[in-house]
Amino acid sequence: MPDLYIANKNYSSWSLRPWVLMQTLDIPFNEQLVPFRGGLGASREAFTRFSPSGLVPCLVDGDIAVWDSLAIIEYVAEQHPQVWPKDKVARAWARSACAEMHSGFTTLRDECSMNCGVRVALDRVSAGLSSDIERLDARWQEGVARFSGPFLAGNEFTAVDAFYAPVVFRVQTFGLPLSEVSRAYVKRMLALPAMQAWYQAALEETWREPAHEADTLQHGTLTADYRNA
Amino acid sequence: MPDLYIANKNYSSWSLRPWVLMQTLDIPFNEQLVPFRGGLGASREAFTRFSPSGLVPCLVDGDIAVWDSLAIIEYVAEQHPQVWPKDKVARAWARSACAEMHSGFTTLRDECSMNCGVRVALDRVSAGLSSDIERLDARWQEGVARFSGPFLAGNEFTAVDAFYAPVVFRVQTFGLPLSEVSRAYVKRMLALPAMQAWYQAALEETWREPAHEADTLQHGTLTADYRNA
Repeated sequence: MPDLYIANKNYSSWSLRPWVLMQTLDIPFNEQLVPFRGGLGASREAFTRFSPSGLVPCLVDGDIAVWDSLAIIEYVAEQHPQVWPKDKVARAWARSACAEMHSGFTTLRDECSMNCGVRVALDRVSAGLSSDIERLDARWQEGVARFSGPFLAGNEFTAVDAFYAPVVFRVQTFGLPLSEVSRAYVKRMLALPAMQAWYQAALEETWREPAHEADTLQHGTLTADYRNA
Repeated sequence: MPDLYIANKNYSSWSLRPWVLMQTLDIPFNEQLVPFRGGLGASREAFTRFSPSGLVPCLVDGDIAVWDSLAIIEYVAEQHPQVWPKDKVARAWARSACAEMHSGFTTLRDECSMNCGVRVALDRVSAGLSSDIERLDARWQEGVARFSGPFLAGNEFTAVDAFYAPVVFRVQTFGLPLSEVSRAYVKRMLALPAMQAWYQAALEETWREPAHEADTLQHGTLTADYRNA
């Protein structure tokens, strides 16, 4: 059974992707949680013990290390074809939407750090953030409508839902404005057992990373913190 | 035969990836070159005619649009398994290294814009750039040594070489410092017929994008321009 190395569930958006995918599809793995310690630089150095890039997530399967969330998903898909939609058109769409999130939506990722356990009122929505939210909303509406839902690429949870799962938590934390269709999708995602398990574990973590906490509040005010002290 | 939409060969690093892959592996496609016009914002709006994200490259195969370089490569690989290394270990490594480039090496990409036809002397190598170059060099040395070369993941050109092809042109333009092993890899890549064809076509383009030209010189001085006026 492979080891999936991840960092803090409260913060590590990239870790969530393969974790929620493998949990939801019942693909066995050993969770290896190694918390961030002393900022990104120091953590990265510590993570090189198991991850060639010093980044998480990293899947270690015997002699093979797979050190990126999208590469992990393709690696797992070789043995578990249900990772991607069966339909060729839906699969091409899902792969494009995953890759778009993997390299893009940078303003959304920078200005709305994943921090599952807190709620933040944004002072204002910047032009860049507004444009990312519009694109995200369009993508979600398109997926749900085109492949008939309830998930982004059809009636099964696949890798594209896993790839947008961190954004679902960001929407909850920052109260991002979305269409009715997208709000309903967020609600469905938050109700998934794997998403609930991740969220509960995030709330129970007591590690706090000062830089990540400051990032979370760079454009807003804390309105609630549901984490254990 | 699918249409591959790309932008200027001189500038569009992401376009180069699927183009050089499909050319080198003799996978048929129609090239559809649509040059950037009036900056990234205006171009993006124009590109939505064929690309859902307004970005290039985009592969259009009948009713299917695949709008990201990595998604295109996985889409093509479904019909053409030679896109990835045959060996499982090499394939996992290649996918990880591709994904790492897809979402990372941001300082290298920001400070050393692809601009095939010119040569630039950098004023200085920033700490961020130096760290990206070191990581790039380590990755190339590791690949060539571990899978016995001459390419990054073995004795055949695969998607991981295509994914690092834009960096090969950046190394040439900015004279980036590399180990002997990596310099030899750059030389082999520049000698490939598809890389030479792309480069010649880049030199013949007469379009100039002021913002991209300014970006190219943000940390250095022009020492040569081999493009046609």
